[in-house]
Amino acid sequence: MPKIKIKTKGHYDFIDITDEVAGIVKKSVVKDGVVVVFVAGSTAAITTMEYESGFINDIKETLEKLAPENADYKHHQRWDDRNGAAHIKSALIGADVAVPIEKGELSLGTWQKIVLIDFDEKPREREILISLLKG
Amino acid sequence: MPKIKIKTKGHYDFIDITDEVAGIVKKSVVKDGVVVVFVAGSTAAITTMEYESGFINDIKETLEKLAPENADYKHHQRWDDRNGAAHIKSALIGADVAVPIEKGELSLGTWQKIVLIDFDEKPREREILISLLKG
Amino acid sequence: MPKIKIKTKGHYDFIDITDEVAGIVKKSVVKDGVVVVFVAGSTAAITTMEYESGFINDIKETLEKLAPENADYKHHQRWDDRNGAAHIKSALIGADVAVPIEKGELSLGTWQKIVLIDFDEKPREREILISLLKG
Repeated sequence: MPKIKIKTKGHYDFIDITDEVAGIVKKSVVKDGVVVVFVAGSTAAITTMEYESGFINDIKETLEKLAPENADYKHHQRWDDRNGAAHIKSALIGADVAVPIEKGELSLGTWQKIVLIDFDEKPREREILISLLKG
Repeated sequence: MPKIKIKTKGHYDFIDITDEVAGIVKKSVVKDGVVVVFVAGSTAAITTMEYESGFINDIKETLEKLAPENADYKHHQRWDDRNGAAHIKSALIGADVAVPIEKGELSLGTWQKIVLIDFDEKPREREILISLLKG
Repeated sequence: MPKIKIKTKGHYDFIDITDEVAGIVKKSVVKDGVVVVFVAGSTAAITTMEYESGFINDIKETLEKLAPENADYKHHQRWDDRNGAAHIKSALIGADVAVPIEKGELSLGTWQKIVLIDFDEKPREREILISLLKG
């Protein structure tokens, strides 16, 4: 299974992976179907969005109000870490997205990108799994 | 790939697309598998929910508290538009949903519908892509 | 189509279904592909997360702030029930998750589990549909 490995900085690191996914789709035999993009881990998420610095700032602010990074979480009592907020955002947004493939290309909107968000409290090396499904 | 084209009004326009999706599933050769329903664009979302006007009002209120339509967003400085809140809700709820197909029918709960939500600030023509995957 | 039937207690009942899903994957012919896990119903959700009691408490608190169980909802006027908040959380988190299968095993992160959350106001018997898709 094709994989994308990415070093992230954590703390709301938004990384546009559209080109990498599109490249894998282009090389595959699937011309019509679906690509499932999945991040292994429970402090990151995958979604689609416009990749624009102003918007990234906006969504960060909304998520920070919902679950602030520096608040106290029960999860911190279990492990020696401070990433409770990261777990919450990851579970809400989700680890996977399924994007249609048409004529060997991703069928996204003009500004719609596939984005990995790393919410963790420290840099991580992330593994993103790319599953190609024939329609 | 089958597509559904829908004219929306924006501003939290909730549109039940279950019958259109079920019709496409019925005509296809996939009797057992999955249908992926995906909206191209980053100011709309697809999810499943009970389609009932009281509930639509409730979820609108919750989302409006989370990211009010009329607040100021950094995204507005980039483009000449006011749809920053729409982008946030779209990224949180997501553009896709995968629904099982059994014996040529959608396997939804009794009240569970497939719903397009258009959060944009103005009417849009939306394209929804329907990918059929054989189990 | 394989199904998992689970009796839940409602009121934020978090149930780890990873082993059941992994067992179904192991017995199937799909060695490389995707499993779609879907809950029929609009007051429950499926997501991936670390399954740890401290974290479950944390996410419960965040969701309770977003849509409190005991608030008044317009949805309650339609039906003789009090599960308006459950519908909101279900629509936000979503009913489905797609997890990659590699060499006959789920490709999850070390702590990442597949979890059913039942938000309803009373015990329910839930049906979870497991769709296996060959890559």
